[in-house]
Amino acid sequence: MAKETFSHLDPDGNARMVDISEKDDSKRTARARITVSMAKETIAALKAGDIPKGDVFAVARVAGIQAAKRTGDIIPLCHPLMLSSVKVEFETSEEKVTIDAEVTTVGRTGVEMEALTACSGSALTIYDMCKSMDKRIKITDLVLIEKRGGSSGDFVR
Amino acid sequence: MAKETFSHLDPDGNARMVDISEKDDSKRTARARITVSMAKETIAALKAGDIPKGDVFAVARVAGIQAAKRTGDIIPLCHPLMLSSVKVEFETSEEKVTIDAEVTTVGRTGVEMEALTACSGSALTIYDMCKSMDKRIKITDLVLIEKRGGSSGDFVR
Amino acid sequence: MAKETFSHLDPDGNARMVDISEKDDSKRTARARITVSMAKETIAALKAGDIPKGDVFAVARVAGIQAAKRTGDIIPLCHPLMLSSVKVEFETSEEKVTIDAEVTTVGRTGVEMEALTACSGSALTIYDMCKSMDKRIKITDLVLIEKRGGSSGDFVR
Amino acid sequence: MAKETFSHLDPDGNARMVDISEKDDSKRTARARITVSMAKETIAALKAGDIPKGDVFAVARVAGIQAAKRTGDIIPLCHPLMLSSVKVEFETSEEKVTIDAEVTTVGRTGVEMEALTACSGSALTIYDMCKSMDKRIKITDLVLIEKRGGSSGDFVR
Amino acid sequence: MAKETFSHLDPDGNARMVDISEKDDSKRTARARITVSMAKETIAALKAGDIPKGDVFAVARVAGIQAAKRTGDIIPLCHPLMLSSVKVEFETSEEKVTIDAEVTTVGRTGVEMEALTACSGSALTIYDMCKSMDKRIKITDLVLIEKRGGSSGDFVR
Amino acid sequence: MAKETFSHLDPDGNARMVDISEKDDSKRTARARITVSMAKETIAALKAGDIPKGDVFAVARVAGIQAAKRTGDIIPLCHPLMLSSVKVEFETSEEKVTIDAEVTTVGRTGVEMEALTACSGSALTIYDMCKSMDKRIKITDLVLIEKRGGSSGDFVR
Repeated sequence: MAKETFSHLDPDGNARMVDISEKDDSKRTARARITVSMAKETIAALKAGDIPKGDVFAVARVAGIQAAKRTGDIIPLCHPLMLSSVKVEFETSEEKVTIDAEVTTVGRTGVEMEALTACSGSALTIYDMCKSMDKRIKITDLVLIEKRGGSSGDFVR
Repeated sequence: MAKETFSHLDPDGNARMVDISEKDDSKRTARARITVSMAKETIAALKAGDIPKGDVFAVARVAGIQAAKRTGDIIPLCHPLMLSSVKVEFETSEEKVTIDAEVTTVGRTGVEMEALTACSGSALTIYDMCKSMDKRIKITDLVLIEKRGGSSGDFVR
Repeated sequence: MAKETFSHLDPDGNARMVDISEKDDSKRTARARITVSMAKETIAALKAGDIPKGDVFAVARVAGIQAAKRTGDIIPLCHPLMLSSVKVEFETSEEKVTIDAEVTTVGRTGVEMEALTACSGSALTIYDMCKSMDKRIKITDLVLIEKRGGSSGDFVR
Repeated sequence: MAKETFSHLDPDGNARMVDISEKDDSKRTARARITVSMAKETIAALKAGDIPKGDVFAVARVAGIQAAKRTGDIIPLCHPLMLSSVKVEFETSEEKVTIDAEVTTVGRTGVEMEALTACSGSALTIYDMCKSMDKRIKITDLVLIEKRGGSSGDFVR
Repeated sequence: MAKETFSHLDPDGNARMVDISEKDDSKRTARARITVSMAKETIAALKAGDIPKGDVFAVARVAGIQAAKRTGDIIPLCHPLMLSSVKVEFETSEEKVTIDAEVTTVGRTGVEMEALTACSGSALTIYDMCKSMDKRIKITDLVLIEKRGGSSGDFVR
Repeated sequence: MAKETFSHLDPDGNARMVDISEKDDSKRTARARITVSMAKETIAALKAGDIPKGDVFAVARVAGIQAAKRTGDIIPLCHPLMLSSVKVEFETSEEKVTIDAEVTTVGRTGVEMEALTACSGSALTIYDMCKSMDKRIKITDLVLIEKRGGSSGDFVR
């Protein structure tokens, strides 16, 4: 029954934090990706030589790393987790920035929400720093790319 | 020059929190929208009568409201703001959930980042609660719909 | 109708953060009280001369002040507020500690939740510091004592 | 001597975070209970059929789960802990709501403060959502019901 | 009397958050400075051309800005404040990095603690990023440089 | 090469949270020290008999313990850690307060940043509580005193 398919809902349909106390600690990794689409002029300015372009990405990278650490604070039913590593990378093309976040833990549950939250935090920060130039930025295509470790098996999109 | 187009960068290209001390307090509103795409079976389970479906959306609504209040904590260069109101609404179709967030403040700067952050927080929460059923959920099309008040004029997408 | 009596629910019964943007800034004060009941031996030890007894209360006072400042983080539909003042006071009798918290703001909404949250934070901290001696501590009778300022009028219990 | 009975105070009576580094990781559970007393009319409105009553409780449940995760932030001398599970349940009678919170961890110290903090967070949220109808709500009788695991033995009230 | 000279203590010597509700909103600015002393080799590596040296400073700048916003969370008796602007600047010599932070608000109390906290957050972040090379880094000479606005008059060190 | 000496930077010089997933859990301790220099009159008032002097230090001690727990929130590239113990001690002379913080964890990485952050949080709190008397307080000489455990060996300054 549908009731049982949502592990965050108890048999009465109420929210709960899923019990992971019987799971074992193991190394788990997840990678997620998001895209920030902007006008060509915005991205050209972002990439222009006379701007120390590293700074926008440096700020967005910190935002992504911090967001990953705060996932359990932002998403109500996520377990707090001791993250072992967070990496955030950027790639720019003519009309968009693509952000990849990879998160690792040694713990009782996976880190896909942490990777997705890192992507969201970084993308929102790029939006924030470019919004004075462009009100039509779109943050899009946030997906899980890969997930390794844990009892539910590996996943590659 | 590009240097001047990014208000979050000083003339040397370093990040800064833009000075808003000379701006006046005024009522400002922003509305943003995001989409969570899932498999038809996932959304059917989400909408199924035997699940108190309100609960997934209730949790996601709280997450969105809390995320809006924590915007200045998540996005490094955002100003802390006293939000006057936050509303988060959901609409479901056969393959997706659409989330609208509307935020109001009386303050010295606008609330578009707060509305976008509310959308992200709600969407990530829906993802989290449905991910045990569906690993291919996509969070997409996060945009600013409307922005009113403040010196830079109104914007409607 | 009941629908309209809960201001935190919209006409469809969904949670929202009530819109206070049309209200005026004014000075508002609230005072709340809570009781921590313990075994006579526990409270005797707490009051014993050879313990610098101020320390338990000093820690509990800081916890209450910090909890008041974080009310909007702990209670989902509370507005963030700039508190102007927080005071936390303790009175001990033979079997209990009574805690009074008084909070003041100049803002668009009242601070009763802040005063109640300060009381809870202080009481939980006393419980925490005494629980190695006494597992039957009871935190009880948390009420609003007084509320002044704002459009809904003064209240004295 | 009393000095030694409060494990959160060092021999000079100063606050400290008790050293748990020599303890072993083990599964620990705690259950706490709190009561929210209100006027009969308030609880009748809360239970009335035309209000999607789930929403008040859904918001209060999320608040309780989030509060449990933030216990180490709210209570100064609590250790940060990786919670494995948090459950919050409500029962209503004619004049009150009773809230039970159960928290599990695999760690070096117990989770009674987490269960008590979850109860407080949920109760304050119910108060907040009902306060426009009733200024005389009382939050009362917060106690530890049960505690299992760890070196100090099980406790049942 | 000494009792009255510490405004954060009440007449009984207990901590309190000073009442600022009768003060007026006005523009207030504060500037603080801190120094991070390191081995010549560490600072040479930090400044070396083959490292995008901006990144260490970009991360430390974000840390300082975020720390300023969280001052009321870190320092128990500080009032929460709506910061209008935060700027963090770095200057390097042969053996040290000097950090200046300037904070502005329009509010009822000054921002010297915010400027000092920004300096501390930035300095600790530089320490953290350089500590694998140098365990003898010293963070030193944190002072208030200047304070303008408010009823207590301007101050220049 | 310098590129490899900063473990918080990847080979391209971008910030990252260092991967600790292959390290083993072990007991690690760090002790740091900081000095708060003030005018003789300020410290005399702080130590005067008619002020319950414990309170300033009690508040500063709580601030230090809380800051240690929040290190991963304040310093962007720090790993979140489950602290097992935090102790903060004060010593006063004629012109300064010296603060020692000792932090213990059982984990995959050391706690020197936690000890340094505890010192900073306590020192800023003392500054805050004395600043109405003395605008020339200097917070200085923050260093790591000792570090034990972990693969990189022990360190004593």
